[in-house]
Amino acid sequence: MGAEQTVSDIGEFALINAISARLTPPSAENTSVGIGDDSAIISARGGQAVACVDMLAQGVHFRLDWSSANDVGRKAAAQNLADIYAMGAKPTALLVALALPADTPVSWVLELADGLNEEAQKVGVSVVGGDIVRADAITISVTALGELGDRTPILRSGARSGDILAVAGKLGYSAAGLLLLSRGFRSPRAVVNAHRVPEPAYDLAEQALHATAMIDISDGLVSDVRHIAKASGVQARIETDRIQIPADLQEVGGAFNEDPLQWILTGGEDHAFVATFSDALSVPKSWNIIGHMEEGPAQVLVDGLLTESGGWDHFGA
Amino acid sequence: MGAEQTVSDIGEFALINAISARLTPPSAENTSVGIGDDSAIISARGGQAVACVDMLAQGVHFRLDWSSANDVGRKAAAQNLADIYAMGAKPTALLVALALPADTPVSWVLELADGLNEEAQKVGVSVVGGDIVRADAITISVTALGELGDRTPILRSGARSGDILAVAGKLGYSAAGLLLLSRGFRSPRAVVNAHRVPEPAYDLAEQALHATAMIDISDGLVSDVRHIAKASGVQARIETDRIQIPADLQEVGGAFNEDPLQWILTGGEDHAFVATFSDALSVPKSWNIIGHMEEGPAQVLVDGLLTESGGWDHFGA
Repeated sequence: MGAEQTVSDIGEFALINAISARLTPPSAENTSVGIGDDSAIISARGGQAVACVDMLAQGVHFRLDWSSANDVGRKAAAQNLADIYAMGAKPTALLVALALPADTPVSWVLELADGLNEEAQKVGVSVVGGDIVRADAITISVTALGELGDRTPILRSGARSGDILAVAGKLGYSAAGLLLLSRGFRSPRAVVNAHRVPEPAYDLAEQALHATAMIDISDGLVSDVRHIAKASGVQARIETDRIQIPADLQEVGGAFNEDPLQWILTGGEDHAFVATFSDALSVPKSWNIIGHMEEGPAQVLVDGLLTESGGWDHFGA
Repeated sequence: MGAEQTVSDIGEFALINAISARLTPPSAENTSVGIGDDSAIISARGGQAVACVDMLAQGVHFRLDWSSANDVGRKAAAQNLADIYAMGAKPTALLVALALPADTPVSWVLELADGLNEEAQKVGVSVVGGDIVRADAITISVTALGELGDRTPILRSGARSGDILAVAGKLGYSAAGLLLLSRGFRSPRAVVNAHRVPEPAYDLAEQALHATAMIDISDGLVSDVRHIAKASGVQARIETDRIQIPADLQEVGGAFNEDPLQWILTGGEDHAFVATFSDALSVPKSWNIIGHMEEGPAQVLVDGLLTESGGWDHFGA
């Protein structure tokens, strides 16, 4: 049988064919031209396309010893799809660019494709195009596309004084999972897995199409609420007594003598959604109210105290 | 003054602000939401978005000692914009994902942004979103978006027996330029520069909206004509006596005892356009007829001889 087959053993075109064969073909409704032409052609009902891109780099966003290829694929897709939902849009397709070392096992790339495909299929879309190049380390760039139809986009700038601030989805799990993995632990699984693969609450974002502002939490709750506050020109107040700390985060916090609230306030990469609503009654079920917006400087107060930092900077400045 | 400022000196958010300040803001007609929200919102007249992605990796697609940051930015934009034109579409926007080592000079990144912006502005579009992450080597992923309006997309699969095969733009220059650079030469400048920055003949592609099939030449003329032949199920015949070899390619060929025709037939990365037209009269001015399509196996004959290879494979299989 010999050693495991690498991408340089089979070559670029065979690799693309093998990947394409694993992907769920897009619906004709969503995609009139998919993989195999110069560009893909994707539906954009309403005459506008919604688009975002995120990049994952080996050693920075994932470690091959911590995450399976499938995990990496799902994570890459999830964080982009969350950005489409955070605009109040409906995803239509993913495009994927991959930089791979020549000795990358073909099996790793196919599992990555499976992960991308699985996450995309959760919301009914497919990978419809991409690029594969040789490089010294693995880098994955995912572009997500979406459409608005007759929906109004939900911007970061729409929050008004008096609006209610609410979150949907898990918070702090990815940060706690990272701590566990970095200390050599592999459990509690719900926490560790949350770092490997975020699970954005796409369905809860779909229930918030009437939100006045929305963002998906990639940098950290405080940091991303600050983005809304700055774009909207209002002050945000987060009240931590409204934030319930899940039992598994309490457990991990106790074990490491860390305050789990810090993970919830500042941990990135969970891709929960935070949004503002014009009144408390319009906050959808399963969203949790954590504060409100008011007249004042464009900043975030946590329990009345100004927080200047709290988030993830890629270059650590 | 101290050492040159690096991206880790100023941090991710300051870097994004500095880049954004250099970019030409998009037209309101093309982009209702640009940099600064979860996603961009871009016009897609006709209700369909055209999208493609390409990745450039340091050491594979560019070398920092051969290409300026501006060159790299222009190349990254050009190769994607060419893919949009090759669909018969009109570009609307670029999204850019950058992986950067922490010690990358800020000035390099800003020049890269200038290059992306300059090439995008050639066709009236802007960079409207992106992502920046830390990594060990520079990787650039560009997503180009386009719209069709009331145009019909031009696919690779539309060529028919009897169609005329024609090319628009420079061919073989990038391959000859690569040879020159790899031997330590910096002239003839037109040839060397063609490797650093392709100059797709966007305007000539716009004149070919009635083409039956079109592709931009990234892998090499023969290889990309084979893509059309296979997708269309027809045989392509290229007649080399119809191909004029430019004086500067003859000069380089003579100096290195190489046949410049090989660069024209197999050199990639020039991003010239090759297309098929239903008859010779409909071939636009400034396009050069190089052959025709006929009944037969889905393959390419060059002067009647079958060519099985002739192109660029990223993993060299």
